[in-house]
Amino acid sequence: MSDVRVGLIGFGTIGTGVVRSFVENRDALNQRLGRTVRLARICDRDIVRGRGVDVSGIDLTTDIEDVLSADDIDIVIELIGGYEPARSFVIRAIENGKHVVTANKALIAKYGEELFALAEQRGVALAFEAAVGGGIPCLKALREGLAANRIESVYGILNGTCNYILTSMERDGSTFDEVLQQAQELGYAEADPTFDIEGVDTAHKLSILSAMAFGTHIRFDDVYTEGVTSISAGDIESARELGYRIKLLGIAKPHGERVEMRVHPCLVPLNAQLAQVWDSYNAVWIRGNFVEDTLYVGRGAGERPTASAVMADVLDIARGLPDCVTHLAAPMAFPQAMRREAETLPVADVEGEYYLRLMVKDEPGVLAAVTEILAYHRISLEALIQKERHKTQAVPIVMTTHNTLEGNLRAAVARISELDSVEGEPLVLHIERFGD
Amino acid sequence: MSDVRVGLIGFGTIGTGVVRSFVENRDALNQRLGRTVRLARICDRDIVRGRGVDVSGIDLTTDIEDVLSADDIDIVIELIGGYEPARSFVIRAIENGKHVVTANKALIAKYGEELFALAEQRGVALAFEAAVGGGIPCLKALREGLAANRIESVYGILNGTCNYILTSMERDGSTFDEVLQQAQELGYAEADPTFDIEGVDTAHKLSILSAMAFGTHIRFDDVYTEGVTSISAGDIESARELGYRIKLLGIAKPHGERVEMRVHPCLVPLNAQLAQVWDSYNAVWIRGNFVEDTLYVGRGAGERPTASAVMADVLDIARGLPDCVTHLAAPMAFPQAMRREAETLPVADVEGEYYLRLMVKDEPGVLAAVTEILAYHRISLEALIQKERHKTQAVPIVMTTHNTLEGNLRAAVARISELDSVEGEPLVLHIERFGD
Repeated sequence: MSDVRVGLIGFGTIGTGVVRSFVENRDALNQRLGRTVRLARICDRDIVRGRGVDVSGIDLTTDIEDVLSADDIDIVIELIGGYEPARSFVIRAIENGKHVVTANKALIAKYGEELFALAEQRGVALAFEAAVGGGIPCLKALREGLAANRIESVYGILNGTCNYILTSMERDGSTFDEVLQQAQELGYAEADPTFDIEGVDTAHKLSILSAMAFGTHIRFDDVYTEGVTSISAGDIESARELGYRIKLLGIAKPHGERVEMRVHPCLVPLNAQLAQVWDSYNAVWIRGNFVEDTLYVGRGAGERPTASAVMADVLDIARGLPDCVTHLAAPMAFPQAMRREAETLPVADVEGEYYLRLMVKDEPGVLAAVTEILAYHRISLEALIQKERHKTQAVPIVMTTHNTLEGNLRAAVARISELDSVEGEPLVLHIERFGD
Repeated sequence: MSDVRVGLIGFGTIGTGVVRSFVENRDALNQRLGRTVRLARICDRDIVRGRGVDVSGIDLTTDIEDVLSADDIDIVIELIGGYEPARSFVIRAIENGKHVVTANKALIAKYGEELFALAEQRGVALAFEAAVGGGIPCLKALREGLAANRIESVYGILNGTCNYILTSMERDGSTFDEVLQQAQELGYAEADPTFDIEGVDTAHKLSILSAMAFGTHIRFDDVYTEGVTSISAGDIESARELGYRIKLLGIAKPHGERVEMRVHPCLVPLNAQLAQVWDSYNAVWIRGNFVEDTLYVGRGAGERPTASAVMADVLDIARGLPDCVTHLAAPMAFPQAMRREAETLPVADVEGEYYLRLMVKDEPGVLAAVTEILAYHRISLEALIQKERHKTQAVPIVMTTHNTLEGNLRAAVARISELDSVEGEPLVLHIERFGD
């Protein structure tokens, strides 16, 4: 059989990992495939010969046409990230009949629908395992391994930076800002960490998981998204006293024709599997109507784990070349014609238990005023902690509620925040139990 | 496209789950596949109409030829279990050009090599996701999701019965026999539980995982196998005091041209992810040279989870029918020609830390005699517990060692067991740390 020839666009961190995979695992790749898969060409705006990786035998170019329009490239790997020019490059690769592998979650979350339609029309593969969960083959599990299930829920720890920050805050008792700075020094957080800490990256990934799970179109803009910037060391400590750990989760569930999608910090029981996912590890918890609960854990980012996922896609495609690619499972698990537009459940309609933290002036009557408002909204409390007392500074009151509608709780919290004795914005976190 | 027609052999527990999947998830299956997949026929020696599942529109037969030789069957599902007649049926199905899906780990572990060769020769698929890890799509993860890795180790909790027993012993402080009886009453353990509690079922599964991970032939007979019958409630308590939990693990690692394969109860650190896998859940931990550590958790058995895995295989095959089946990843991840015979590492050559429990007469000098033997074999102790004292009955002494060769330790233990003051057989358990 002829060699499978791969062109790589983007020679950054993950690109370097992909090159290392071709070099270090050459024999393993070819043995598993039963034919030769070869990295023929690398394109970057600014090709530097020598990122500590052997590029002998690989063409290096700065001209994108050498990959997108070349007759001797079967599979294009896109690793430049972001919306443009990634989108234009992927479109042109597909139009030129090339199979595409990408790690670009922003691209898939925002322009996936356009790209899937085009890929199906041109009969080429579009693969993106590395876009969600880094090295964890969680999209393959959802798309193929659980294909015989109706999916009932998806919970994910999908951002390594946030998980690292929350883990370190708990371990060291540090503040958010201290840990963020440390994470940046260690290279675990970007110089501009906004997408990570504000939950946007998690929302990108959740929107992909959700659409793949439920056969719906990707609606990234609909994902309710909160980040981790409001979490204090005190919240982490209070959660622990109550038997919980704080994790940034992405959650998706079907509700008849509608889909619930939300990203925010949650309290999870200390003995839950997701509570044991530390540092920059990611995890995806998927429940199906036959398989029941399944969990997938691994490195959510990094040069080598991400390259592992990219290369798995390359091998999946290469296995069917030249004429058996349409047999691959559809990129979003359902053939395009079977996928549907679904409304997103307003977050106010989500039902759950909540953690509520207020900063209050420690004066008579404040607790009575707060609990009266909660009672008026028919919200009943499960636990209440008020430890510190201070004559002049605001002190935290922490409460957990029984089941209620989020809209209900938010209305109560709006009124509570208007009380004179309450300072700043109350913090509301979901409590999520698994296996219930 | 024409319908894909499935014939089922074996209408027991899992068979019933498969029928339920066709009935309950009919729309989901067909939507995901983009064509109709239909359960055309069920064969069992003793067909009973009505296991609480709707079989309308499905032919029921007691004649195996109605499935194996029928022109209107594309995929045969074998769910009768055991070696024969399962082996003969699968061979004849393959010879008749049918694709085969099985959940039969004993069959694959013992006769897999014969069946893979035949399937490749006849150009049909042979799939067995349900044979390892029940509903967890762990074989797909290893075969395809991690295909770009050289696999460095596989650890598995692969038998739900044993995990349920160990979990219950720890939770309730019960004895092995009490919990086993309870498990049998609950249907978690077979009437004859030998294959489960002696580690044979785990060894079947490990031999498959190991061969798939390292590209070697399956050598089930070579797996070093111990069960859980020697574990006492006291061992579970001592382990916990030392910071560990006892789990029955299957472990496979490559050592150059040789492969280490062993099944036995192990001490795992309390904070390890595998220590959090409870009850009848299974888990597989796979480390690759790019992906690093990944973990897969889910139900390891049961009607519906196992049916989920069986049906995933059916859909994988159905997707490529009629003419694109050879593109599927090879059943054992490597094409037949690339798989090699590998020697098994003798267990005496395994290096590790150990837990050692002796029952001794509480008399002067016994500890000195034991530690002298250990010192002679250059085995150094990390911890020692001797709590109970009793003038007439034997009492336990528990020790943990630093790193040593198993052969070395076994030699020392053989001498220790000959001491007059030592009663019965000493218990030796491996201590396994992850992420080291």
